Amino acid sequence: MAKPKADYVVGVDLGGTKILAAVVDTQGNIVGRSKRKTLPSAAINPDPPLVADRIAVTVQEAVAAAKLSMARVKAVGASAPGPVNVDTGWVYKAANLPGWHNGYDLGPELSKRLQVPVVVDNDVNLGTLGEAVYGAGQGYADLIGIFVGTGIGGGLILGGRLRRGFRWAAGEIGHMTVAKGGPLCGCGERGHVEAIASRGAISRRLGEAIAAGEPTALMVKEGGVIASGEIRKALDASDPLTQRVLLESEETLGIFIASLVNLLDPQCVVLGGGLVESLGQPYVTAVAEHAYAHFFLKDDMDKVKIVQAGLGDNATVLGASVLARNLKANI
Amino acid sequence: MAKPKADYVVGVDLGGTKILAAVVDTQGNIVGRSKRKTLPSAAINPDPPLVADRIAVTVQEAVAAAKLSMARVKAVGASAPGPVNVDTGWVYKAANLPGWHNGYDLGPELSKRLQVPVVVDNDVNLGTLGEAVYGAGQGYADLIGIFVGTGIGGGLILGGRLRRGFRWAAGEIGHMTVAKGGPLCGCGERGHVEAIASRGAISRRLGEAIAAGEPTALMVKEGGVIASGEIRKALDASDPLTQRVLLESEETLGIFIASLVNLLDPQCVVLGGGLVESLGQPYVTAVAEHAYAHFFLKDDMDKVKIVQAGLGDNATVLGASVLARNLKANI
Repeated sequence: MAKPKADYVVGVDLGGTKILAAVVDTQGNIVGRSKRKTLPSAAINPDPPLVADRIAVTVQEAVAAAKLSMARVKAVGASAPGPVNVDTGWVYKAANLPGWHNGYDLGPELSKRLQVPVVVDNDVNLGTLGEAVYGAGQGYADLIGIFVGTGIGGGLILGGRLRRGFRWAAGEIGHMTVAKGGPLCGCGERGHVEAIASRGAISRRLGEAIAAGEPTALMVKEGGVIASGEIRKALDASDPLTQRVLLESEETLGIFIASLVNLLDPQCVVLGGGLVESLGQPYVTAVAEHAYAHFFLKDDMDKVKIVQAGLGDNATVLGASVLARNLKANI
Repeated sequence: MAKPKADYVVGVDLGGTKILAAVVDTQGNIVGRSKRKTLPSAAINPDPPLVADRIAVTVQEAVAAAKLSMARVKAVGASAPGPVNVDTGWVYKAANLPGWHNGYDLGPELSKRLQVPVVVDNDVNLGTLGEAVYGAGQGYADLIGIFVGTGIGGGLILGGRLRRGFRWAAGEIGHMTVAKGGPLCGCGERGHVEAIASRGAISRRLGEAIAAGEPTALMVKEGGVIASGEIRKALDASDPLTQRVLLESEETLGIFIASLVNLLDPQCVVLGGGLVESLGQPYVTAVAEHAYAHFFLKDDMDKVKIVQAGLGDNATVLGASVLARNLKANI
């Protein structure tokens, strides 16, 4: 009997709360998927080997969901929420997985469990790669991915290649200073773009205004968290407080994008993440208008595209599948 | 008689006030040079063909100073103070040469005059390339060059190649926002790093403080210009006003460098330009300390070098000679 052809790859998105795995064919179609919590209970410490076991099970279940056997899987690409040595598969640390602060050899450990080659990269890098190959950034060799959620993460593709950095630490765009001396960031510094324009920062500013007695149509959950969907609803209801705070965040993100363009002069900026998905094209259009207004070189300005991400939650697993398909860091 | 070997190249630095040309051998040694004003008189309009004639003469005189003939020159590399299409030699505009606002075909026009191949690139790109190949950045494939003078210019070498940008407009780092809503920049925007940390900005702030009656040891020239050398002297005399303004500029430049490192994670940052040359290592050390304090990833922080440029005025002509030696844009 001939050996079955290993022409599928699996992309994995490892996050602080969930693991996603998707089986991807040679055309970039997702033909099977699986999802589970990163941990069975918040009370359990996220020991790296335990999480690796759960990733392996999720991969196997995605392959089963595609009605395939592991023999049909050429390789697995996995993301991690932190800096990764892509040459070796070593994860230096993962912000949302406290047990990982000493690092973990995720690539080799997954490979041992699954008996296929495994490549690992940072989640935002892979999200950007997914958008570049299958999403809103198709056709652009020069691309900046900006993902706005609780924080702000970024990925750079320059000259057709992911920019990973000398210490595998490139793309920490959330922690670039745009308003020196400004609002406090989660990292302890002031005036970072994440401290003004992330969903987390918007939520915090709204909470402060509400605590100070400002009237609003916003619904605030227990614990003071204001989700992207609530911000969207308050905007739809023309809530003045929400409009004012959002306008400042759009303006800041626009000025920030202009700074990145003045530095790197890319072809395309892709905006994704939870806040962007909730607020959609009106938000992207507003941010883009602020950005263009601050470009240093105005010539051929409209050739620099500022667009909404197209793949939603699939960006990272699809980017991971591209990495698995190529099995090397030089993409 | 055998044809003489064309094993020399000439690097040209075209600025708003002067033209420098240097003949460079295969080892990177400057074996002859020439210099003249960009224009014979400020009253003369810097018509592009007139300037091209003067560049050609300067090149020929540098070759004569090296006791060589033009037959020994393989190619000429030239810089322009503005964005350049390196594939064609077209200069889009040159900020300090008002007659050039419609652009000029500098590469082909110089080639016609000199009868050798001519390649052209932006002056700060070439200064960065010079430092990377022959100066303080030797051995680093990932390098950011920051040149602090009247303004702030930058060049990026990523993965061993100059980052020129989709519109040939990369590296406009002076016009990145670091203090949203802050001091006015020469370009009309607010809070750019150039508006706080350039020699021009420091000079302006000092002038404002002096006009407001603050005591100082500074000597201010007619027209209110405060040169880098005067700033140095006032610091040597422990002038409190100059110390205070300089400290703010050092802190801002440090925070800005940290932002660039958080984005690009390079191996090396080279600081050059008139202000850096005047103030020397104490300034570079102060800026570097502020920068390191704001790195997001502290791991292996000391592997990211922040160093003073080593080539002074020769950086751009030497970078231009590297371009001429390679005769293509993919360096």
